[in-house]
Amino acid sequence: MRPATKVLALSGGVGGAKLALGLSRRLCAGELAVLVNTGDDFTHLGLRICPDLDTVLYTLAGVVHPGQGWGRADESFGFMDELRRQGGPDWFLLGDRDLVLHVERTRRLAEGERLTQIMSDLATRFGVATRLLPMSDTPVSTLLDTDAGALEFQHYFVRLRAMPKVQRLHYAGAAHARPTDEVLDLLRSPALEAIILCPSNPYLSIDPILAVPGLRMALRAARVPVVAVSPLIGERAIKGPTTKIMQELGVDRRAAAIARHYTQLIDGLIIDEFDDLPETRAVLAAYGLRWSATRTLMRTLEDRERVASAALDLARLLRAESTLRWSVG
Amino acid sequence: MRPATKVLALSGGVGGAKLALGLSRRLCAGELAVLVNTGDDFTHLGLRICPDLDTVLYTLAGVVHPGQGWGRADESFGFMDELRRQGGPDWFLLGDRDLVLHVERTRRLAEGERLTQIMSDLATRFGVATRLLPMSDTPVSTLLDTDAGALEFQHYFVRLRAMPKVQRLHYAGAAHARPTDEVLDLLRSPALEAIILCPSNPYLSIDPILAVPGLRMALRAARVPVVAVSPLIGERAIKGPTTKIMQELGVDRRAAAIARHYTQLIDGLIIDEFDDLPETRAVLAAYGLRWSATRTLMRTLEDRERVASAALDLARLLRAESTLRWSVG
Repeated sequence: MRPATKVLALSGGVGGAKLALGLSRRLCAGELAVLVNTGDDFTHLGLRICPDLDTVLYTLAGVVHPGQGWGRADESFGFMDELRRQGGPDWFLLGDRDLVLHVERTRRLAEGERLTQIMSDLATRFGVATRLLPMSDTPVSTLLDTDAGALEFQHYFVRLRAMPKVQRLHYAGAAHARPTDEVLDLLRSPALEAIILCPSNPYLSIDPILAVPGLRMALRAARVPVVAVSPLIGERAIKGPTTKIMQELGVDRRAAAIARHYTQLIDGLIIDEFDDLPETRAVLAAYGLRWSATRTLMRTLEDRERVASAALDLARLLRAESTLRWSVG
Repeated sequence: MRPATKVLALSGGVGGAKLALGLSRRLCAGELAVLVNTGDDFTHLGLRICPDLDTVLYTLAGVVHPGQGWGRADESFGFMDELRRQGGPDWFLLGDRDLVLHVERTRRLAEGERLTQIMSDLATRFGVATRLLPMSDTPVSTLLDTDAGALEFQHYFVRLRAMPKVQRLHYAGAAHARPTDEVLDLLRSPALEAIILCPSNPYLSIDPILAVPGLRMALRAARVPVVAVSPLIGERAIKGPTTKIMQELGVDRRAAAIARHYTQLIDGLIIDEFDDLPETRAVLAAYGLRWSATRTLMRTLEDRERVASAALDLARLLRAESTLRWSVG
């Protein structure tokens, strides 16, 4: 029997995957589940590609390319070279080994299988004990209205290198999506102890998950502490175009803005030491949030474990407090 | 404007492709079209694979693996290694570069495009002036009833290495297939001068083509000489399991049996020098066939050109004779 899941982490791609790895190493095998954004998924060359799920899978399996944080360390590009030679679209890099996942997933989806089951089987193949849970088995697509027109996420992010100015985001298909039974069961499980929001882009990685109808409410109904790890260090993002988008959307670009963004959802926030300032503390206190500060930049495995510990410790603290509160209330 | 097609060759995979290359070098660019067996096509890992079409394409493009006669010379196997590592089916070898064709074809077929159009575009991409014509845009599947049960061709040929004993062949879907407009137009074209049956396996490569309703009749109605190149040298096949199958089906395994097999269809036969014996001549004469003998084993490019010349010369002779006959008749 697999051990009961104690912690659920919400994650996008590279940055979230790093914390997920840290969490998996600070918990016993099988105690972690990762609820992964599928808003970046798209169909390319007829293949169904799930960048965030695959990044989390490769990271947890220890086969991820250490430099880039996505794709595989041991990879070849014969397919890509040949595609380019034949004049095919070469803006999205597909490694030869990586292709196995896309081909297999596409085949199984075409046969009517659920993405959740497919990813579960792939995790088993890769020897990953952590559960990988897509946010939904229904396709949801993050669309960006930009000054270069409406763009699917990968076209914005990879093809156009996140250069267009973002005016608005929406999550196409979200209204018709539903959480999976696996996720709802997990959120109702008495074994669950904490929910962690990884330091992924709030707009591009976490919001699509929260846009799945019923999921935000189910997260709160779980009655376990929800702790976010801020993706910002000062006004800079740990990874990717987070602050660029925040600026374009006209929101403040500091840890306090993350607190505001996740208000009503989170109980605690991990901020970077750099942001541990009186003004930040005042804002977090005003939101009624517990916080703790650590170095959030995750370069080494030790960094990932340290940030994971900070998030787990804060969740434990919150849990102890709320248990106390419930028992006296 | 592309030059009018003068010669149509019917071909399977490796052996047929070699002659097709010889023919293409003995004709002007664009004068050759190859009508290719698609009975070997199958769906593997969700990808639509057309082994004979791809072998002919790679051979004519000069990128085929010279040793094996199929697949590509410059190839890597990252996908295959990873598929094997993940426990996927590894009996059908798919190179990383080769995969581009399968992915692209699968995508375009799923979008409702015709195989004929897809292969025409691929030929252009590879700089191949010879027209590549699938025998039909409707899937037809060569099935073998064997002592190991009913098998799709690739399972029989590749997975089980042609070891099961063949009892009967049929071409599933052939009844509902139809020749393409491209092939029918070509067979009605006044520019067409000859039809060549490549030394492919009569049962596995040529018969599936002839099983497409209307195609055999359209070949005869073209009123141009039809010349076959025998795939046998004595009782041995140039390539593949031809004689093994002939033995299992209980037919004679000599050039004369090829003449019998193609009776009513061909006007001439190229036989190997080894088979140029009085008894063979007598049988061929009894069938009313013209013949000519050459070394049919095609190891070098010169071999391919020599056999191609023999077939084209015999077709020209037959054409001259029939023109004479028609003018006096």
